[in-house]
Amino acid sequence: MNKIFNPKPETWSAILNRPTQTVEDIELTVKEIFSEVQKKGDEAVAKYTSLFDGVRFENSEVSIVEIECAVESVSPELKAAIQLAKSNIENFHSAQKTDKVIVETIEGVNCWQEKRPIQKIGLYIPGGTAPLFSTVLMLAVPANIAGCNEIVLCSPPDKNGNINPAILYAAHLCGVTKIIKVGGIQAIAAMTFGTQSIPKVYKIFGPGNQFVTVAKQLATQFGVAIDMPAGPSELLILADDTAVPAFVASDLLSQAEHGVDSQVILVSTSKAMIEAVENEIQTQLEVLPRKAIAEKAIANSKLIYVDNDETALKLIDEYGPEHFIICSKNEDYFVNNIGNAGSIFIGNYSPESAGDYASGTNHTLPTNGYAKNYSGVNLDSFMKSMTFQKISEKGIQNIGKAIEIMAEAEGLQAHKNAVTLRLKAIENGK
Amino acid sequence: MNKIFNPKPETWSAILNRPTQTVEDIELTVKEIFSEVQKKGDEAVAKYTSLFDGVRFENSEVSIVEIECAVESVSPELKAAIQLAKSNIENFHSAQKTDKVIVETIEGVNCWQEKRPIQKIGLYIPGGTAPLFSTVLMLAVPANIAGCNEIVLCSPPDKNGNINPAILYAAHLCGVTKIIKVGGIQAIAAMTFGTQSIPKVYKIFGPGNQFVTVAKQLATQFGVAIDMPAGPSELLILADDTAVPAFVASDLLSQAEHGVDSQVILVSTSKAMIEAVENEIQTQLEVLPRKAIAEKAIANSKLIYVDNDETALKLIDEYGPEHFIICSKNEDYFVNNIGNAGSIFIGNYSPESAGDYASGTNHTLPTNGYAKNYSGVNLDSFMKSMTFQKISEKGIQNIGKAIEIMAEAEGLQAHKNAVTLRLKAIENGK
Repeated sequence: MNKIFNPKPETWSAILNRPTQTVEDIELTVKEIFSEVQKKGDEAVAKYTSLFDGVRFENSEVSIVEIECAVESVSPELKAAIQLAKSNIENFHSAQKTDKVIVETIEGVNCWQEKRPIQKIGLYIPGGTAPLFSTVLMLAVPANIAGCNEIVLCSPPDKNGNINPAILYAAHLCGVTKIIKVGGIQAIAAMTFGTQSIPKVYKIFGPGNQFVTVAKQLATQFGVAIDMPAGPSELLILADDTAVPAFVASDLLSQAEHGVDSQVILVSTSKAMIEAVENEIQTQLEVLPRKAIAEKAIANSKLIYVDNDETALKLIDEYGPEHFIICSKNEDYFVNNIGNAGSIFIGNYSPESAGDYASGTNHTLPTNGYAKNYSGVNLDSFMKSMTFQKISEKGIQNIGKAIEIMAEAEGLQAHKNAVTLRLKAIENGK
Repeated sequence: MNKIFNPKPETWSAILNRPTQTVEDIELTVKEIFSEVQKKGDEAVAKYTSLFDGVRFENSEVSIVEIECAVESVSPELKAAIQLAKSNIENFHSAQKTDKVIVETIEGVNCWQEKRPIQKIGLYIPGGTAPLFSTVLMLAVPANIAGCNEIVLCSPPDKNGNINPAILYAAHLCGVTKIIKVGGIQAIAAMTFGTQSIPKVYKIFGPGNQFVTVAKQLATQFGVAIDMPAGPSELLILADDTAVPAFVASDLLSQAEHGVDSQVILVSTSKAMIEAVENEIQTQLEVLPRKAIAEKAIANSKLIYVDNDETALKLIDEYGPEHFIICSKNEDYFVNNIGNAGSIFIGNYSPESAGDYASGTNHTLPTNGYAKNYSGVNLDSFMKSMTFQKISEKGIQNIGKAIEIMAEAEGLQAHKNAVTLRLKAIENGK
């Protein structure tokens, strides 16, 4: 752990610097697989599934029987937990629905804004040791509320050709329309171009390793939108003397266990708190199953002491953390003034785990400083805003002259003419 | 003009195909200039301004005196037109403000969503023959309503080192905080990295030629967000016998004059209407100052006859036009069911020009089929959504068990532990 006391503002960006990732080596591989999937479709997908996942399918779509078996095999306890989480996520995301915005901007000029669903979306759920069924909830629940017609889920098969039952259960529960046992670059490529058996989608959501991340970036060059650029997960905790060191340590460790590149930062106005948290981390770390991973992330973590809340806020705002926990007697100050953060957890009983799983907020959040310019996934991520206008004769008379003058000044005579013709027709009709 | 009668659905995608653009040649140039601006800052920017725009500045920021002169030189008529447009744009975008979404998802678990401004934004306004002061309004007005602190505008200088006065007037009127006489790739690079005199921004908005487009794409690899991917402008008109051929022709031509690659499509259930529009186009085209450009775009345009409204809707939805004008006795059918379009203009008195300038809707819209997955620019484009949660002891007791079970099932023990510690503390406190 790196302890830093009262760093000068000019050193902040170096202290808070995130590790840059080089992707150039990967890019070539990703481009090759994309090109092959574009040309050969299912055949190429099957080849890479065989190569990377060690299984070969006649049909990579998960069957109804497979889903039924999965539903059967998930414990009632886990099912209940997933259902509770789903209910809270539904409550929170349903409340994000917006009404039509209708404005008569000037007499006779009726404009409105309406959100309509993105019709076809793709969800990518990684395989590996941690089966992220929670991410299925976070993406499929709002997609359903938005009204997306087609929700395709791709996830890599294990060595036996299966997807973790909890993922299948969650997907089935949340209305995913098609589940496909395909992972990695080939999954993203298939959803980008469409194959004989995998539909082309308009937007791809979900986490993944660096291959998937680069593949999602490449997908955007072929007209597909993505949820957001990805990076290692991050947590910054602001803790003063009102925080509980054991809680703070447990939150920092829950971030650290994600991966060796996880970003873990404590900012405190209390030197005693920094010391206490440091000790607690050592104690709690010992018994963690993912100790090896967490230990490395903790070694790179930063414990930063600053003199006052104002400095703390400025420093945190410059960093723009994905997750930001506030344990401070002045919590309102931080809540009201933080400009850049993905999701904010307030008080001693709001651990990041709550937002990761079950409180109802979304856990797909901007990392890597993207909290400065990107929203976390929310209901609007699955919709697009469209505008409408209906102008009456009176309306075009009210704004026609202004349009003519502006179009002329921009040198666009045909734009002007479209209005002039109409104004004349109205005049002649009188 | 290409007339097509009752095309079979399997031919739609070929008929509606947009020209693909190759950018590979440009990419190298863009990367070089980015790298140089990143390393050398203002010096590199000045070099490229001198090279591409033929002027050399001591200071590229527009001075207060320059703004005052510009304000003086714009005609009162144009000022009034710009002010009317600004007022309507303000009305429409102010109405898009959303309240905090506050939900107690389960007893003791208080979650809310709030939108906060992107603090630093950059606007790019092209130079050239058409001074796009209207785009200044479309971007700076909502940026101001959103509350962005820093609004930087870059636009290339003319041969005499000036920016068009109408652009300066509009920028000044709409609260742009800094106007800089820098254009092209070097402008985008400067706003991406920041230089001694040009601020780094978090999100870049605005149109531009293919160099600017590629530069904006590259900017996203350095952590900057952009409004949306760009492509040539498009208009699709649905017209039945209730349309006015002269109006329809004038709208198609106003699209066609944008550039030779503009996409111009008429879909009609009336063969007589197609013929009448074709004749009107020829007549109106003759007197246009930008005839040479419009003529080429019109030569590539498509006039498509279909038998019925249902087929028309499906075809239009597959295309996903940037601008969609509906002149039909069944206008409600199209308004209610269109899934993919940027901005929709309804009835004979709603020309696209109205939305381009003065009705109040935004004219920065998704082209190239991006209406399927991207919103046009709106108030939310200048903000990001953040979530907050405050959980009470009761709240964590309500969801704690579910979190523990789910975290354990995902193999994330430290996530579980963060909850277990808290639940135990509450129990022990009793």
